Amino acid sequence: MRQTREQIVISTQGQGLYDFTRALRGFIERSGVVDGLATVFVRHTSCSLLIQENADPDVQTDMLGFFRSLVPESMDWLVHTTEGPDDMPAHIKSALTQVSIGIPVTEGRPVLGTWQGLYLFEHRHAPHRRQVAMHIIGE
Amino acid sequence: MRQTREQIVISTQGQGLYDFTRALRGFIERSGVVDGLATVFVRHTSCSLLIQENADPDVQTDMLGFFRSLVPESMDWLVHTTEGPDDMPAHIKSALTQVSIGIPVTEGRPVLGTWQGLYLFEHRHAPHRRQVAMHIIGE
Amino acid sequence: MRQTREQIVISTQGQGLYDFTRALRGFIERSGVVDGLATVFVRHTSCSLLIQENADPDVQTDMLGFFRSLVPESMDWLVHTTEGPDDMPAHIKSALTQVSIGIPVTEGRPVLGTWQGLYLFEHRHAPHRRQVAMHIIGE
Repeated sequence: MRQTREQIVISTQGQGLYDFTRALRGFIERSGVVDGLATVFVRHTSCSLLIQENADPDVQTDMLGFFRSLVPESMDWLVHTTEGPDDMPAHIKSALTQVSIGIPVTEGRPVLGTWQGLYLFEHRHAPHRRQVAMHIIGE
Repeated sequence: MRQTREQIVISTQGQGLYDFTRALRGFIERSGVVDGLATVFVRHTSCSLLIQENADPDVQTDMLGFFRSLVPESMDWLVHTTEGPDDMPAHIKSALTQVSIGIPVTEGRPVLGTWQGLYLFEHRHAPHRRQVAMHIIGE
Repeated sequence: MRQTREQIVISTQGQGLYDFTRALRGFIERSGVVDGLATVFVRHTSCSLLIQENADPDVQTDMLGFFRSLVPESMDWLVHTTEGPDDMPAHIKSALTQVSIGIPVTEGRPVLGTWQGLYLFEHRHAPHRRQVAMHIIGE
């Protein structure tokens, strides 16, 4: 049994879904682990992780539209406003999605379904550099 | 330290919660792992995983009712509509719940609480065959 | 490769976020694992886990406010009401957040970002004793 860990940085330019499935695949290949468990963890509280459809870009448009409508920046009862009107909504969107995802690995590849892509879900408007930790254990 | 992996198929007949706690327990028993970590991962983007109360079926009725009301099929601003009116809401419900759950294992059993059951949460109306990957590592 | 497991109890006094980052750090230190993967799992269906900002307490106020407004106790169409008006909303809030979080460990510490704290998210009004299972595997 062996394990390895890497940290990558994803540069974001505003709200959206940033596909980093390829980075995960590269990490798994470099690790030499053929069967095991990969874990992806985002080190922030105003962006998150999402596994979603990678085929039709309209899915991403609607996903963003839904979260914008569910957690609008116009909620005037918020008290945490010092970091801008998009900050507290970003924390809430992060709470509603995932900070960590575990993905089994077999034959040197993550067991993602055909239509599954791995995304960083950025909830802030301003550009950010997001750190994502990746860990794998197996054989 | 050892590990093993299995993939199961869960046949769904419309929206609802499908209990597969027993399949997880069987997988853990077959693996021979007594102490370790089990991971369950669903290979789709229009259904998801949920750990919820396994006692009163009314909980499932209300859970479905809430998600139907939070993410209605009547959202007429959606652009991803080619796969039917329940498809994009299914992707959103999937984003709001979980695609992957890690469960510690001890004495050959998952450490689920007394009232916790493991469910596939189907968000589509039509029947589907859903693939769930299960992985365990331990001793 | 080695692994270890502990269960802790967190006493809650009503709805709120209960920081137990220190308990996780202590568990990792006691385990002797320097590099690996830690998993935290809550054994209940009316509270959940959340990684959120640990700096400004206003974030917690707004987080609670949002979830209270998204899943109000006043939903009069609920059928699961035997355990009180806050019980079914608690199950729903639990479904919308996380029951399990995997966190990579390096240099004997979880790779939490500077502003990330680990919280038990209590959704019930009455005091409860909540069991959280922690597992770590690594070297």
